[in-house]
Amino acid sequence: MYPTLMFTLQSTSSIGRRGNIRTAHGEIQTPFFMPVGTAGAMRGMTHEQLGELGAQILLCNTYHLHLQPGEETIAPAGGLHQFIHWKKPILTDSGGYQVFSMRHTSKIEDTGVHFRSHRDGTPLFLGPESAMRIQHALGADIIMCFDECPPSTAPRQDIEQAVDRTLLWAKQCKEWHKELCKKSAHVPLLFGIVQGGLERDLREKCAEELMAMDFDGYAIGGLAVGEGQEEMYGVLDAVCPLLPAEKPRYLMGVGTIPQLQNCVAKGVDMFDCVLPMRLARHGHLFLSDGSDIRLSHSKWKNAHEAIDAHSPSLLSRTHYKSYLHHLFKVHERLAETIACMQNLGMTLKTMQDLREQMND
Amino acid sequence: MYPTLMFTLQSTSSIGRRGNIRTAHGEIQTPFFMPVGTAGAMRGMTHEQLGELGAQILLCNTYHLHLQPGEETIAPAGGLHQFIHWKKPILTDSGGYQVFSMRHTSKIEDTGVHFRSHRDGTPLFLGPESAMRIQHALGADIIMCFDECPPSTAPRQDIEQAVDRTLLWAKQCKEWHKELCKKSAHVPLLFGIVQGGLERDLREKCAEELMAMDFDGYAIGGLAVGEGQEEMYGVLDAVCPLLPAEKPRYLMGVGTIPQLQNCVAKGVDMFDCVLPMRLARHGHLFLSDGSDIRLSHSKWKNAHEAIDAHSPSLLSRTHYKSYLHHLFKVHERLAETIACMQNLGMTLKTMQDLREQMND
Repeated sequence: MYPTLMFTLQSTSSIGRRGNIRTAHGEIQTPFFMPVGTAGAMRGMTHEQLGELGAQILLCNTYHLHLQPGEETIAPAGGLHQFIHWKKPILTDSGGYQVFSMRHTSKIEDTGVHFRSHRDGTPLFLGPESAMRIQHALGADIIMCFDECPPSTAPRQDIEQAVDRTLLWAKQCKEWHKELCKKSAHVPLLFGIVQGGLERDLREKCAEELMAMDFDGYAIGGLAVGEGQEEMYGVLDAVCPLLPAEKPRYLMGVGTIPQLQNCVAKGVDMFDCVLPMRLARHGHLFLSDGSDIRLSHSKWKNAHEAIDAHSPSLLSRTHYKSYLHHLFKVHERLAETIACMQNLGMTLKTMQDLREQMND
Repeated sequence: MYPTLMFTLQSTSSIGRRGNIRTAHGEIQTPFFMPVGTAGAMRGMTHEQLGELGAQILLCNTYHLHLQPGEETIAPAGGLHQFIHWKKPILTDSGGYQVFSMRHTSKIEDTGVHFRSHRDGTPLFLGPESAMRIQHALGADIIMCFDECPPSTAPRQDIEQAVDRTLLWAKQCKEWHKELCKKSAHVPLLFGIVQGGLERDLREKCAEELMAMDFDGYAIGGLAVGEGQEEMYGVLDAVCPLLPAEKPRYLMGVGTIPQLQNCVAKGVDMFDCVLPMRLARHGHLFLSDGSDIRLSHSKWKNAHEAIDAHSPSLLSRTHYKSYLHHLFKVHERLAETIACMQNLGMTLKTMQDLREQMND
């Protein structure tokens, strides 16, 4: 068994919290952003390219990996790190988010969720026990409790029920985790997830009861799913001060560069988001001067100048806007690679800059 | 004006011809294979990745670049090298092959071919003059005469007519090339293309008349388009001995690794082929032990072993077969990158090995 993984908070300021998390696969400097490698790969990017941009950790989706290739394939490979040949830390989500986003085809019970595979329609079940078993088998460094994630705009009684189930499942996850750790050479960090939609009192209740169970870190879920940005900040302002200073805080599914800066200032340590990559694939790029451009616009057809002369991505420093515009026009996959490296590079650089400002 | 680009033949043996071609963008060691970067990019690969595999030169398609973004965009960028940020040599084809592969929608005249854009149906025309003007504007290091390329299985009279047009157009291309060189800071090598299908006498006639026009190199076109491998070798055995030793020889559209080895032995110096990449995209990989495997087969699901421990591609040395099988299953683009780098790496390595054998 590895020594218990640890979070060290080094400083707190108006910029944010500066610290590090030690894992069996190396140290992660906080605050940080996690690229999402859904089924064990980033779309259009090699692991080496991810590394060049300074990614410290990869997020993978339990739901997707459970369906294909399945933990029964990954565990004998030596776990997910070995299977995908990624040597740095990995966080796996619980699968809950994907399952609940198929709300119309899934049936929720107190024991978990019955749903059908999006691949072939096979009936499947995911609950606290299976979420823990799968994540332990995958061997991630940070794993997540199985939670119920309703739309933030759902009626209060739905949110109330989701909080109750999330708390019940968190307790069960913690117990299964404890059991599974006994047999494991590898002890992951287990995070609880604070739900409660936009209802402050439910958020507070959820946070307090999770803290009583004592998790290794706390995530704030159910945000960035349709509510306004100010509402999201409001929830953070209510929840963050309740959470223990000595545990890492993870805001799930956020966000844009200004949101990351604001949320770090509010005391968040960890983020993930697919938006920068989705925008990149549609030719929407964030540049290092703070502007953003749509490469598909014909105004770039003859723009024979670097995509971003000060980009963290070499491809953007060396290739022209006109070339990238052309690659999008002819649907060349290199377009996606260049664009994704630009937006991910900018996102990771934002976090690095914040860390450096806090070091000063 | 740059000094005239030159071919130096260093040795000839039963393995093949060893030499080099000097261009304004550096020296190319012969024999060599050219990756096909259709519209100025290799599918699923960055230029850096191409460089890592030892690519010495990139082939780009005049037809595709003329349609999008157009030479009127590329020339002001400083030419194709600058536009795509590829610093090594580039060869452009004449556009003839693409135009003739749309035979049912194109109209062939003695002055050239009327056809419609595959992108938007715009009526277009390509002939010897425009092929030379476009290629000069693109600024490639090696350019090709506009030729008529009928199927090798076409009736003799069609082949005969194609040879006559190819010779007429070659003469006109040479004249236009001479004119364009006067105004150019950059003098590309111009290659004539030997047509004649499987008709030996027509191949001989075509080769001899082209040689009388004195080109910088000679290509053998209209092969690898449906005829048997032995028929292809037969044409090479008839044509290669006729061609001047001091000029490079380019077999267009070939081929597999054994074909490359055989054709080098027959005296060919240059090759291009999209087949290794197409096979890769379908999960068909060439390994360095000489075997080939289909990654889509379920037998690889649990094969937790390097794709190819002795591969020229780092990705294949570090990633598992089981992982690549999984990436193909979930349609992750990284599958294509890994597979293409394997097959292109093996193809380029084959040429490098042949060159080294000839150095010994």
